[in-house]
Amino acid sequence: MRYGFGVDVGGTTVKLAYFAEDGTLLDKWELPTRTAEGGRAILPDIAASVEAYLQRRSIPRRQIMGIGIGVPGPVRSDGTVNRCINLGWGVFNIEKELSRLTGFPVKAGNDATLAALGECWKGGGQGYDTMVFATLGTGVGGGIVIGGKVLYGTHGAGGEIGHMVINRKERQACGCGNRGCVEQYCSATGIVRLAKEYLENCDTPSLLRNVENLTCKAVFDAAAAGDSPAKEILEQVYAYLGEFLANICNVIDPEAVVLGGGVSKAGIPLLEGVQRHFQKHVFHAVAPVHFALATLGNDAGTYGAFKLIKE
Amino acid sequence: MRYGFGVDVGGTTVKLAYFAEDGTLLDKWELPTRTAEGGRAILPDIAASVEAYLQRRSIPRRQIMGIGIGVPGPVRSDGTVNRCINLGWGVFNIEKELSRLTGFPVKAGNDATLAALGECWKGGGQGYDTMVFATLGTGVGGGIVIGGKVLYGTHGAGGEIGHMVINRKERQACGCGNRGCVEQYCSATGIVRLAKEYLENCDTPSLLRNVENLTCKAVFDAAAAGDSPAKEILEQVYAYLGEFLANICNVIDPEAVVLGGGVSKAGIPLLEGVQRHFQKHVFHAVAPVHFALATLGNDAGTYGAFKLIKE
Repeated sequence: MRYGFGVDVGGTTVKLAYFAEDGTLLDKWELPTRTAEGGRAILPDIAASVEAYLQRRSIPRRQIMGIGIGVPGPVRSDGTVNRCINLGWGVFNIEKELSRLTGFPVKAGNDATLAALGECWKGGGQGYDTMVFATLGTGVGGGIVIGGKVLYGTHGAGGEIGHMVINRKERQACGCGNRGCVEQYCSATGIVRLAKEYLENCDTPSLLRNVENLTCKAVFDAAAAGDSPAKEILEQVYAYLGEFLANICNVIDPEAVVLGGGVSKAGIPLLEGVQRHFQKHVFHAVAPVHFALATLGNDAGTYGAFKLIKE
Repeated sequence: MRYGFGVDVGGTTVKLAYFAEDGTLLDKWELPTRTAEGGRAILPDIAASVEAYLQRRSIPRRQIMGIGIGVPGPVRSDGTVNRCINLGWGVFNIEKELSRLTGFPVKAGNDATLAALGECWKGGGQGYDTMVFATLGTGVGGGIVIGGKVLYGTHGAGGEIGHMVINRKERQACGCGNRGCVEQYCSATGIVRLAKEYLENCDTPSLLRNVENLTCKAVFDAAAAGDSPAKEILEQVYAYLGEFLANICNVIDPEAVVLGGGVSKAGIPLLEGVQRHFQKHVFHAVAPVHFALATLGNDAGTYGAFKLIKE
């Protein structure tokens, strides 16, 4: 049996995990992400942590297949990172650099794309070969797996589905600078924004009017308790999500759609609501798509990162 | 040098072409598509035509690499045709069937997808590895090439981009049964429909009011002649196309977008108009996409079909 590491670099913490070749997660831990000075300490910190782990556990280096790493930005299939704004990184080949620091083979990818690969391998998309993964969190991200392989895209931005346009009449700008992106409506932040707009524009009584700091969870909870305005707000979100996912599926024709991220904790009501609208818009030949919830939570990225080095 | 055939089955004619291994088109001809009795004569007609061609030209069978064939319906990567309504075909493995009839290896794909592969290999997308192809004709079709390979999709409907939703408020139904599909606005038929609606809803003088049977070409001609209503109609079409193509590119992150089909004869004004709106909507990392016009015309499908058997 051989082993390897999966690493998921976030803006505040780096997640590391030690895997057996068959994908069993044996151990996991975190490091703070040191973004000072253009994030120059991040890769040396990871290398030192891997080295310390091997020494502490007396693991011989020849048992290690390599390190897979996911980063919050575009990564091309040759390992070139194309700017990670959160980390202070510019353009460089992360595979070569981390390999130089550790002596192990390294494969890299975008974090959301690798979470997709992880979910496809061991999570909600297990058993499916071609999968669309959407993470509905603070923002909306995603990744596409086709025939078991990650879609990197020409500029490392394959599966950047959160910035597809869903409402060309939007007046507010998205974080990306465009207007009307999916992220503005279907992220946790977007759902709260829609809820606030809804409540401001009517007088209908609602449980949500008593909530001090309105959260996405509060909207789902109120809807579950039968609150009509909350239900209408979510119906709007489901309509956006259904149309958005139908459009992606009409391009990719996947076996499965997997929903992850904080918003997906809403579970079955979310899946059912989205599928209802999805079926209105999807092309008939593409319609028999399986919908599932992500199951790996915050570990999806390290699973996917490790899967990369197995290929 | 070896040789092979590319076949493109349409609703009224079957196009056949004889290629050298390097992709030189040596000869081409057509047969009528006999759709009677569930289209049972179509494959035997093709087999007989191939056989007659080889005999007439005294070409030894061992020089033939095989036959590639494109059909107007979903085709899975294993060669299963999943209903071709225009041809009367149900579900069967076309690769096995045509191979049995001819004795040659056969590879099959969807016609628009194979036109994409053809344009990527020898046409407007030459030199690009990952390409989105949109055919703007009577309908809107398309195909996706990723890393030089066709995206078949799970149900043989990869790249069915003409039925992406672009206007969820549409009241009229699309041919596919849904509402608000791209095809309803950006096909030749759709452009004429938009033009008629525009002219009915205003009194602005326009060259188009004198045209008896309004065509898509008439709208482009009037716009080129400076007709304001025609220009506004096309601006609407460019806005739809720009948004639609940006959404596809945000999923795929291709090197190039190639536009084909009758509408693409409008040429540079179309390319410029579309790109102007595309840049408003596309995610910044994906933005450096090359736009090009298709160059192979009606031969794109046979080029792509032949390319399939080279793989």
